Amino acid sequence: MKNETITAPKGFQTGTAACGIKQGTTRDLGLLVAQTTCAASAVFTRNRFCGSPIVVGREHIRNGKLRAIVVNSGCANVATGKRGIADARKMCQFVADGLCIDAKNVLPSSTGIIGQYLPMNKVQHGIETALETLSSSATAGRRFAQAILTTDTKIKQAVERVRIGRSHVTVAGCCKGSGMIAPNMATMLAYVTTDADIQPRTLKQLLTAAVEPTFNRVTVDECQSTSDTVALLANGATATVSSQRELKTFAAALRAVCESLAYQIADDGEGATRVLEVTVSGAKTPADAHRAARAVATSPLVKTAIHGSDPNWGRIVQAIGATSVAFQPDRVTVRLNKTVIFAKGAPARNLDTKRLAKIVGQRHVPININLGAGKASDRVLTCDLSREYVTINADYHT
Amino acid sequence: MKNETITAPKGFQTGTAACGIKQGTTRDLGLLVAQTTCAASAVFTRNRFCGSPIVVGREHIRNGKLRAIVVNSGCANVATGKRGIADARKMCQFVADGLCIDAKNVLPSSTGIIGQYLPMNKVQHGIETALETLSSSATAGRRFAQAILTTDTKIKQAVERVRIGRSHVTVAGCCKGSGMIAPNMATMLAYVTTDADIQPRTLKQLLTAAVEPTFNRVTVDECQSTSDTVALLANGATATVSSQRELKTFAAALRAVCESLAYQIADDGEGATRVLEVTVSGAKTPADAHRAARAVATSPLVKTAIHGSDPNWGRIVQAIGATSVAFQPDRVTVRLNKTVIFAKGAPARNLDTKRLAKIVGQRHVPININLGAGKASDRVLTCDLSREYVTINADYHT
Repeated sequence: MKNETITAPKGFQTGTAACGIKQGTTRDLGLLVAQTTCAASAVFTRNRFCGSPIVVGREHIRNGKLRAIVVNSGCANVATGKRGIADARKMCQFVADGLCIDAKNVLPSSTGIIGQYLPMNKVQHGIETALETLSSSATAGRRFAQAILTTDTKIKQAVERVRIGRSHVTVAGCCKGSGMIAPNMATMLAYVTTDADIQPRTLKQLLTAAVEPTFNRVTVDECQSTSDTVALLANGATATVSSQRELKTFAAALRAVCESLAYQIADDGEGATRVLEVTVSGAKTPADAHRAARAVATSPLVKTAIHGSDPNWGRIVQAIGATSVAFQPDRVTVRLNKTVIFAKGAPARNLDTKRLAKIVGQRHVPININLGAGKASDRVLTCDLSREYVTINADYHT
Repeated sequence: MKNETITAPKGFQTGTAACGIKQGTTRDLGLLVAQTTCAASAVFTRNRFCGSPIVVGREHIRNGKLRAIVVNSGCANVATGKRGIADARKMCQFVADGLCIDAKNVLPSSTGIIGQYLPMNKVQHGIETALETLSSSATAGRRFAQAILTTDTKIKQAVERVRIGRSHVTVAGCCKGSGMIAPNMATMLAYVTTDADIQPRTLKQLLTAAVEPTFNRVTVDECQSTSDTVALLANGATATVSSQRELKTFAAALRAVCESLAYQIADDGEGATRVLEVTVSGAKTPADAHRAARAVATSPLVKTAIHGSDPNWGRIVQAIGATSVAFQPDRVTVRLNKTVIFAKGAPARNLDTKRLAKIVGQRHVPININLGAGKASDRVLTCDLSREYVTINADYHT
């Protein structure tokens, strides 16, 4: 069986530990190590109360090089002042000491409850254990994908293999994210590895281009996290990607990995029973298309209606109407999948509500809106809003 | 017992009917009639898919005069094209015919499901019945307050009595609103009557000033309705309000009525078990204060935490951090009621989580944020997010 985990590309190993930040024997610490220093790029949350690991991570990624990533779940190390930043630095130092590398080549991540300090003794022991378990096996890769989870119910992985020249290049990723998920970015940690050889500057452009239509178009609860991180490591173990054609091939693989991971986040959104894919076309500007799609995707009324298998399209119209994007109400068309439900300012004639209920009762619900105001389009993924979301978030105690 | 309903001011009558838009014998049509033509003002939703009654209402209020208001619940008459607008006009005409007045002096309102046509035969019969039951009794007033409800669990009324010169002036109101509630305005119908004598132009200024800090600062689910209407009718049956001092007295009474009604909306928000009062001070600008307060008040993570009696203040910090308002993270102070929980970029020392849990376990939860960036302040009311909200909105079928 092929390795379909983050260790699928050549030259990457992962190690994990159950260090006791979370209760019981749940894995809560993961380590990703490349056999050589990688060209690296990362995108972080724009939340201004960003986590301490983000502050340290921004410093460490500046030279476009990384050798390892260390992640813990159960505690986000956010809003923890100077002590929190010192703790994030220590996490990197423990890893650096174990691998005999520079701490600046380690990227730290933490996810979990905000406002609590990391139990550094446990973290240190966890890192030691993780270092001992380093392996490039699929089992090790899966365990890493598991160690970074919080309220997620599933591990989230994706792998793409493409041909560059005479070599096979692999792009692999895993991520976590289920709640506090909103564009720019999701509450989400995502790590992507590849054995391609790419310059850091190019890597940065490719990552930004891949994140924008994928991770930045997922929302679960429109709550922008303090810890979001997407990091991409390229160790150059197989082929050099340099020509325009090769770059295009690689970019498509990278985007496919990000797209798959983003979809898995929506699909595993807290309490989710369906994925809503809101597509807006006919917008005057790309920004308008994005805002309209996001307005529908973040409406609790739309999300609860879909949860109840209710084709209550009036709430879609209401959500668009509340925005300030350019449109004339009587030129807007709303479709559930391909079925027109609203056009020319009024409900479509002869609406077959049973058929519509069947569409919104599927696991994947496509909502298509044409604003009739231009040519721009965009798409946002989200999930329905269920009682389970409330249960998860009312009971996730500090 | 005093009349504490919308018919408390002199010279107002209400009539109601169960005309069958809603199932069973629930009252779903209400009529408010003044004995003389009133100075009147109204504020409407800014949603661009506004209801047909809003289109007609805007026309009818233009001259600052009204004699009657007709409201139905169960069907919002929104997104119903030209037929919907014709139906809203007919509602006014039926009332005008019954009272021998001009249809332009009637304000129509409809609330309920979007995208369905009004059953005009039922509406016509309902208006006939409502005309027959016109009365200025408290019972009639209460029935009117009941007839306008949708998912509300309680009727919402408020009365203030003030002395103007030698007379007693009464300001009374009732409203509906429980879901699809967001600033500008709530999904809400609110009607305020007074027996004071005030010029239409003055009335408009007073209403705008009263709505802004009250109805425009309530959010249940941040979904801006298509039907919002706040209307104020002054029939001049008692005293003329003209001096600056009298205007001030009257304005305070009007604001108190609006404040009480707005609070009742938050308190009866769909599935609500608590009211959150989010106050932001120390903001650079009033707009910043409003945006920060709204960001916290609309965060599903904050709302679910409070629902679970969880003082998870990290989510408050996260919500503020996601905005672009001016602040330095280490100058922000967050208090639950008066207890500091976050200051100088870190959790307050010696936090007594049991005591905090007690604060967030109350029916009224005050969240106070000082941004440390200036002198502006604002306040937004909301409610917690419960499983019941999802149940109500997943099962409110089209």
